[in-house]
Amino acid sequence: MPELRKDPIVGRWVIISTERARRPSDFAPVPSTRAAGVCVFCPGQEAQTPDEILANRVDGSGANTPGWSLRVVPNKFPALRSEGELESAGEGLYDRMTGVGAHEVIVETPDHHASLARLPAAHVAEVLRAYRDRMRDLRKDTRLEYVTVFKNHGEAAGASLEHPHSQLIATPIVPIMVAEELEGALHHYRHKKRCVWCDIVRQERRQGGRLILEDDGVVALAPFAPRFPFETWILPSEHRSSFEEISPGELGALARTLQEVLRRMSRVLRDPPYNFMLHTAPFRGEAAEHFHWHLEIIPKLTRVAGFEWGTGFFINPTPPEEAARYLRGEVPEAPVS
Amino acid sequence: MPELRKDPIVGRWVIISTERARRPSDFAPVPSTRAAGVCVFCPGQEAQTPDEILANRVDGSGANTPGWSLRVVPNKFPALRSEGELESAGEGLYDRMTGVGAHEVIVETPDHHASLARLPAAHVAEVLRAYRDRMRDLRKDTRLEYVTVFKNHGEAAGASLEHPHSQLIATPIVPIMVAEELEGALHHYRHKKRCVWCDIVRQERRQGGRLILEDDGVVALAPFAPRFPFETWILPSEHRSSFEEISPGELGALARTLQEVLRRMSRVLRDPPYNFMLHTAPFRGEAAEHFHWHLEIIPKLTRVAGFEWGTGFFINPTPPEEAARYLRGEVPEAPVS
Repeated sequence: MPELRKDPIVGRWVIISTERARRPSDFAPVPSTRAAGVCVFCPGQEAQTPDEILANRVDGSGANTPGWSLRVVPNKFPALRSEGELESAGEGLYDRMTGVGAHEVIVETPDHHASLARLPAAHVAEVLRAYRDRMRDLRKDTRLEYVTVFKNHGEAAGASLEHPHSQLIATPIVPIMVAEELEGALHHYRHKKRCVWCDIVRQERRQGGRLILEDDGVVALAPFAPRFPFETWILPSEHRSSFEEISPGELGALARTLQEVLRRMSRVLRDPPYNFMLHTAPFRGEAAEHFHWHLEIIPKLTRVAGFEWGTGFFINPTPPEEAARYLRGEVPEAPVS
Repeated sequence: MPELRKDPIVGRWVIISTERARRPSDFAPVPSTRAAGVCVFCPGQEAQTPDEILANRVDGSGANTPGWSLRVVPNKFPALRSEGELESAGEGLYDRMTGVGAHEVIVETPDHHASLARLPAAHVAEVLRAYRDRMRDLRKDTRLEYVTVFKNHGEAAGASLEHPHSQLIATPIVPIMVAEELEGALHHYRHKKRCVWCDIVRQERRQGGRLILEDDGVVALAPFAPRFPFETWILPSEHRSSFEEISPGELGALARTLQEVLRRMSRVLRDPPYNFMLHTAPFRGEAAEHFHWHLEIIPKLTRVAGFEWGTGFFINPTPPEEAARYLRGEVPEAPVS
């Protein structure tokens, strides 16, 4: 059973994942995801994954058979497990908790060689709808506090399988980064009676230099203080706290915006490895007034090293105003050297 | 001039480093550090670096010539610059500050092929003494609040040059991770009137399972809630707040302990890439009672991906009790597969 453990100084929780227990000899370089062999996410290989939780099928095909356009399955090597009671224990200075949660894979398309940047926008909307529907379902589990949806694209960004997929991990604790956003946002709200992300959207629209694009109520921008070069945030321009409440119209606008940003990144940065992470309001607690959902996209272009791990300071070589100019298409493309 | 910028939600500062300004075409994969060519840190190449700040020479050789056993030089591509006034400005929601600071390289040895794990312990002590002496000097600059000493070993851990070296970056702000440690430690101190790291050392000595080794007042241990597999902390067992005040005897014990831990990691994990980061009390403010200096070593064995970047949760596949058993030499070594 995996275990959650809390650092006694800073209060950060980590997951000790015994499902993936590793001896020193297991840390050899990961074999390439491009290696030959059968892809477990391709149609016809449904028996290789745990039973599907959700699948979009228009042809009346049966569960765990081909015929799907999107499929959600439990992760075969889950970081947290859905079975068992949520129990916590102290031990002197230390706190631990059973590793209860959920870890699911969203197989975005049957096409092994597709990508979110190239699928039809309607299909991207289908992927986003699956995120929403899984969140709506998981919130019924009273042991859980939060669902993080994320995507690792490309080996350097942590993808261990090439087939287009995203993941979600549901945790019995609100992640520390979301907790810090909640705290900062609540502070802003108490002082100004306004949502800080709403204020950011207003200021960015007024200044213009970091805006990338806007489509029917959804904005993409380069944040003022990005950790990574070409980091991009996508968020609704109107105040929306919980991603689970996204409307069909907003889903469509988000799908078009996400796809367009990924297309432009792919063009400007030559199909970079990237991660994206969705931040939404926690299941419990009152965040409706001060939290605003947003999607953070970080291309993997630089290495994170000792300075960043030791300080939390990030060194970003590309000012966001420059990144936004490239992503708006205002800079002629450099010839491939 | 580089610029410091603050995220308006969580208060995290980033460095926008114009010295290293990068266009999209600059993000091609980094060429191997093992590539042929002259090493700028090797003896005879002193003119390739900015003028040395400190050098250990026993043969009466002149500055910026061969004959040194250790050399500290300004980084040729500094993340922050020592020239200029510290100025800050607001802009609506946003705060920025001039990128004043220092960025130095500690060239640990003239021997290109040496490593801290294999140098004589007395030489490792010389490296640690250089850290201390540079901190003592930099604290005189009233614009600066903190010095972070760190090392990137191996390309995968962010080293762009192979020659053994560490770095330091002095910042006009206490880094957020140190600030969070200070806050957590102060909270503990207020409740218990004890230092949290002193309490950790006591509990680890009593329990034993995460202790790795102990040498004359210096302890190496696997922390209870490590972010990374085989993460190791080294710290004095008696309360010591500021690394700058380390005594010659403590320097010697730290050098032996650091070297022994690096040797064992190298044996167990086959010369892994790693980072280490030194955390000490800030230059100003009152931290003498509740902050305890420590060195964090993180071998680079796993990839950090979307889940970690989106949540601050880390998934660690190796329980620290297991890692400590390996680093104590209690597990027979697996044959190389």
